[in-house]
Amino acid sequence: MALLFLSKHDDPTRWSAALHRHLPELDIRIWPETGDVGDIDSALVWNHPPGELNRYPNLRLILSLGAGVNHVLDDPDLPPGIPIARIVDPGLTGGMVEYAVWAAMRYHRNLDVYERFQREGTWKKLPMPDTARRGIGVLGIGEIGSACAQALSAFGFSVAGWSRTPRTLEGIVSYAGNESLKPFLARSEILICVLPLTTATRGIINAELLEALPKGAFVINIARGGHVVDADLLAALDSGHIAGATLDVFQPEPLPPEHPYWRHPKVTLTPHIASLTNPDTAVLPIAENLRRLSAGQPLLHLVDRESGY
Amino acid sequence: MALLFLSKHDDPTRWSAALHRHLPELDIRIWPETGDVGDIDSALVWNHPPGELNRYPNLRLILSLGAGVNHVLDDPDLPPGIPIARIVDPGLTGGMVEYAVWAAMRYHRNLDVYERFQREGTWKKLPMPDTARRGIGVLGIGEIGSACAQALSAFGFSVAGWSRTPRTLEGIVSYAGNESLKPFLARSEILICVLPLTTATRGIINAELLEALPKGAFVINIARGGHVVDADLLAALDSGHIAGATLDVFQPEPLPPEHPYWRHPKVTLTPHIASLTNPDTAVLPIAENLRRLSAGQPLLHLVDRESGY
Repeated sequence: MALLFLSKHDDPTRWSAALHRHLPELDIRIWPETGDVGDIDSALVWNHPPGELNRYPNLRLILSLGAGVNHVLDDPDLPPGIPIARIVDPGLTGGMVEYAVWAAMRYHRNLDVYERFQREGTWKKLPMPDTARRGIGVLGIGEIGSACAQALSAFGFSVAGWSRTPRTLEGIVSYAGNESLKPFLARSEILICVLPLTTATRGIINAELLEALPKGAFVINIARGGHVVDADLLAALDSGHIAGATLDVFQPEPLPPEHPYWRHPKVTLTPHIASLTNPDTAVLPIAENLRRLSAGQPLLHLVDRESGY
Repeated sequence: MALLFLSKHDDPTRWSAALHRHLPELDIRIWPETGDVGDIDSALVWNHPPGELNRYPNLRLILSLGAGVNHVLDDPDLPPGIPIARIVDPGLTGGMVEYAVWAAMRYHRNLDVYERFQREGTWKKLPMPDTARRGIGVLGIGEIGSACAQALSAFGFSVAGWSRTPRTLEGIVSYAGNESLKPFLARSEILICVLPLTTATRGIINAELLEALPKGAFVINIARGGHVVDADLLAALDSGHIAGATLDVFQPEPLPPEHPYWRHPKVTLTPHIASLTNPDTAVLPIAENLRRLSAGQPLLHLVDRESGY
């Protein structure tokens, strides 16, 4: 049996080498050079062409190359019943934490304003903000969101997290469920979105959510572009209710050249680089799942197709 | 006896309130309203006029309002023999750590380059840097430098510290003394200066030091402007050997409007705001020293006038 590697964004040579370090015998087929489609029993995928996964009659496991699996579930012709496993990669989580801390610290310490002061040639000190009184809210406290919340908490920020179901994290105030979203937002001067993209979270950063944030709040999105209603965010930035947004993800990507985000003075944007899956660290749980698949043992990090994560 | 508060930069009302919370009976005189100069036995100072401290015949303790004491020692007419105490303020240290992490993370993750890409309308991903292989060097690992080094080490960076005398810090590679400066610099892709300004460290960031850094290194100075030979740093930026500098401190301050730093594309500058002494947290060791002065007990955080810190 063989693993199909199916991604136009990831380097098959680097991934094959990383996989072979753990599974030297593994037969890897690099799409579209699949060989006999009947050989394929597992597929490691990123943004596969819709319907493609129906071509493999013996497929028994779909492995996502990203932490989010919306790129898999968005396929209307996804073969039913086949288990889907998320990636759990300490390297990917670390990159997200680095970006979240950089973006939050920049707003907390008025460094976006000091950038403007430098351009204007203005030497002016602003009052020093109080870290302990700075409310930061993390939308989505799964694997990555928890790590972001705890890294920020270590600096002494007042950090809260919001999730669908209650979670207990040391030093983090936890809010759960739709009815607690408003009170969570009311204390989030800096909001960081790390949610999975599901039917329940698509468009969650809309006019109503933004209005529930304190005046002058900042929004950081490192999840998916589909979480944001762009017109609502632009309106909230233009009204002054939202003081700034740092966006790493967009709908679509690449962000079209004419999009107003590119030149908006209150928007900082990066081209979906907050983090990348690192083959050297991400390959471990993938190799373990392939081993379990061969041995008929329970698989790890499986996704619930209903909830979408 | 009375405490003289002598600073044009700090708010006497806020400091008086903070001091009175711990020492309700304390007689505080706000310079230049000193009353009888013979009443003054301690002085809390920032950038006092040279010679001014000779006017108080009963002065027994000089307390610095900043972590650095060069502003005290630079007075050629400083009365001899009177103990000088540094401030030790967890709030001040925390602010320095926040700034250092922000500045280092920005360079580590190429966010300075992505800022330019946004201005140019370029959507382009750069390779993801490896945190564990990123060498960060902290020049000066006293109270503040140690905290910066340990915060960066917590992200997984490869952090080294350099100091005059050897120090042992968990997770930090320690270099000590002049003969180890070159090997320390050779592994510092991001150099953060947190040194005290003394006769030995003035102008330490000069052509020779910059040349010993790896090509493409970054320099972050949050100590004092006097540590940097500006012409040498500008030459190293222009030659491309140094890829960028983030500077919070200058000689003189405010930085004159015509200074090339203001408009240099590789310089990020802020107006000495990396941290500020916070009266609410800094007042504790000051109050303790005043109590010890009254009780004739040994004083804390004393400065060695010879070494300058």
